[in-house]
Amino acid sequence: MAAISSVTIRRARREDVGIIVAMLADDPLGSARERLEEPLPACYFRAFDALEQASQIKLVVAEDADGIVVGCLQLCILPGLSSQGASRALVEDVRVASQCRSQGIGERLMQWAIADARGNACKLVELFTHNTRVEAQRFYKRLGFAPSHVGMTLRF
Amino acid sequence: MAAISSVTIRRARREDVGIIVAMLADDPLGSARERLEEPLPACYFRAFDALEQASQIKLVVAEDADGIVVGCLQLCILPGLSSQGASRALVEDVRVASQCRSQGIGERLMQWAIADARGNACKLVELFTHNTRVEAQRFYKRLGFAPSHVGMTLRF
Repeated sequence: MAAISSVTIRRARREDVGIIVAMLADDPLGSARERLEEPLPACYFRAFDALEQASQIKLVVAEDADGIVVGCLQLCILPGLSSQGASRALVEDVRVASQCRSQGIGERLMQWAIADARGNACKLVELFTHNTRVEAQRFYKRLGFAPSHVGMTLRF
Repeated sequence: MAAISSVTIRRARREDVGIIVAMLADDPLGSARERLEEPLPACYFRAFDALEQASQIKLVVAEDADGIVVGCLQLCILPGLSSQGASRALVEDVRVASQCRSQGIGERLMQWAIADARGNACKLVELFTHNTRVEAQRFYKRLGFAPSHVGMTLRF
């Protein structure tokens, strides 16, 4: 497959929700968690509306030259008192469409997130990757991330 | 030391910033990161003001029966599309004053956070603990958290 020469990173719109959920579901962990149905369950649109209201959060997509959405990422800029009142950036829900992997799209998304974090005076970008996502961990290390923390979760 | 029979969890106020920063600094990792000076650097108050504007974030303190602040915690409720549009809760900057540890104050703070996350329909509470904080990891496991993720960080 030819390398995608360029993707555009832009804020997600309501009409992108279906393709984003399809990417979230097309994943060993996500497939059990999502409901990729036609029509798409209203819970996803309610969540999108909540994201639109959340001023610290940006849900973005990567769009190829044909305007097709091929990746997504959610970035949250979180103020806090620690580290001399520095904001930190939390990256979540990074996905690239399965037919478009290994073309640098994930890296473009992450570089966008890192630049946005810098632009918002963050001193830290942080993310959780599931213990089983060994390839993702390698990818993030290549971008300069250190596996410095244990990510602990409590699921209801 | 007698067990503290009860602490009150309440939203942090501007006048609590100094004691919260003192708790952040009184820590092997925090001591190198904070500037506990008199007067307290303005960066901390700017961060507090940003927290007050951030509608998804609650910075809370634990106050003992004498009205002394003995612990703190920051909770962020994050909407998102994944897991059928479920919000998740991120817990950060959990601290208990060094002279008040092992009295259940951290547990009270965490139980407050878990209850708030449930009340906000979150399906997940997540937190980062530094790899070196082995005791903290034991504490969170006791509360039901699983070390399911690698927490990766990029510091500028």
